[in-house]
Amino acid sequence: MAASIQDVIMLFGDSITQGAWGPGMNGFGQRLSHVYARKLDVLNRGLSGYNTDWAMPIFKQCIATKRNRDNLPKIRLLVIWFGANDACMWPSPQHVSLGKFASNLREWVDAIQSPDSLYYSPQTRIILISPPPVNTYQRRADLESRNPPKSLDRTFETTRAYAEAVRDVAQEKQVGFTDAWTVLWKAAGEDERSLARFLNDGLHLNGEGYRVMYDALVKTIGENYPDVHFDNLPFVFPPWLVHVDEAPGKAAFP
Amino acid sequence: MAASIQDVIMLFGDSITQGAWGPGMNGFGQRLSHVYARKLDVLNRGLSGYNTDWAMPIFKQCIATKRNRDNLPKIRLLVIWFGANDACMWPSPQHVSLGKFASNLREWVDAIQSPDSLYYSPQTRIILISPPPVNTYQRRADLESRNPPKSLDRTFETTRAYAEAVRDVAQEKQVGFTDAWTVLWKAAGEDERSLARFLNDGLHLNGEGYRVMYDALVKTIGENYPDVHFDNLPFVFPPWLVHVDEAPGKAAFP
Repeated sequence: MAASIQDVIMLFGDSITQGAWGPGMNGFGQRLSHVYARKLDVLNRGLSGYNTDWAMPIFKQCIATKRNRDNLPKIRLLVIWFGANDACMWPSPQHVSLGKFASNLREWVDAIQSPDSLYYSPQTRIILISPPPVNTYQRRADLESRNPPKSLDRTFETTRAYAEAVRDVAQEKQVGFTDAWTVLWKAAGEDERSLARFLNDGLHLNGEGYRVMYDALVKTIGENYPDVHFDNLPFVFPPWLVHVDEAPGKAAFP
Repeated sequence: MAASIQDVIMLFGDSITQGAWGPGMNGFGQRLSHVYARKLDVLNRGLSGYNTDWAMPIFKQCIATKRNRDNLPKIRLLVIWFGANDACMWPSPQHVSLGKFASNLREWVDAIQSPDSLYYSPQTRIILISPPPVNTYQRRADLESRNPPKSLDRTFETTRAYAEAVRDVAQEKQVGFTDAWTVLWKAAGEDERSLARFLNDGLHLNGEGYRVMYDALVKTIGENYPDVHFDNLPFVFPPWLVHVDEAPGKAAFP
């Protein structure tokens, strides 16, 4: 069995999280894995296609209850990033109403923060991320090119409303918030078609999209939770030069 | 605390492992994280600069003993990749003799495979990887450009001998073996200077080096341990379409 010698960052989300180690993308999962190497393990709990309703029972399996925590690593940072699928329009089975979406996010934050919760974990820092803006020009073209063709399932304005709901829950609960929707929208000059620079199919981030979003996430970590910023965490195991210093019988490294 | 809902792959090695999620590299850590998403977590236990002597006490902290395993994830695959630093020439403090290097590797394999070991884990598959060949032309230039300049610390032939020792231990112990030394040497047309296509400083793999080595590692997994090949492992949590099928009251996905 793997001993819990490093605490963890858990990334809980949909396909935009699941795909964040993809080749050629420099996704935010990969980049966090890199900068937190020897400090915190980064766990991919991304679930392609999932909305917050479907993810609800999985959340409760990913977090250990108070009674079952022996030996397990602490979650130092929990990043929750949903909304891209919840914002699908009814009658898509992925649709979750705006009110229920916000309520699900609140339930997750409360599960970690309420002292009477089975999942109570006061050391766990939480960051909520808003879903990225949708480029309906790209998305429609992608869906219409499928066999059989599908009709547009998301609108620009609906996803914006879900992004605002994430912001509101983060404010209400006083947890970290990375506004992926707004940073990407501004980077695109507030022009929907220009979002193609950051999205590969109108919905999922490409490498440039992940770059913008990663920078915003690291900023949130630094401003809200500097204690878990990678610059402020030591290596769990010492740098190799410590061993050289501790071996005075050996010659200095040439 | 993070519940152990996924078993793990542990990558135990030196800087070539630690850096395997680096940006722009498509390193083997990143790529395993991607293809094993929702199947196995990939843990970075790479230790830049370390040799097998320094790594010995850390190995024993990374693997849970029989007495302390409650709740912990199984290590389904343990990948051990050392030798690049052990092969430094005496009197470098990183130097570990060839005999001790092989003995350290044997000790790790035995720790997992011997029924009387505290770390006994019969379900854990083991793969040993040989260190990559050194391009002494690149390496010398890199070291001489430092301030103060350093002299060459590794030779081509010495690293070859350490690579052969890894092969011999793998054969003796009947565990998986990925011969990074040979696949890179052959890819370079058995020409030392041509190794520059695969090494960025004569020692560490670049993106192309990781590509060649990743393919060889996946081949080893498929041939030796098909039960832990990513194609043969199910998702821990169901694909999202399962939820659609289970919600007959909802309309089909448009």
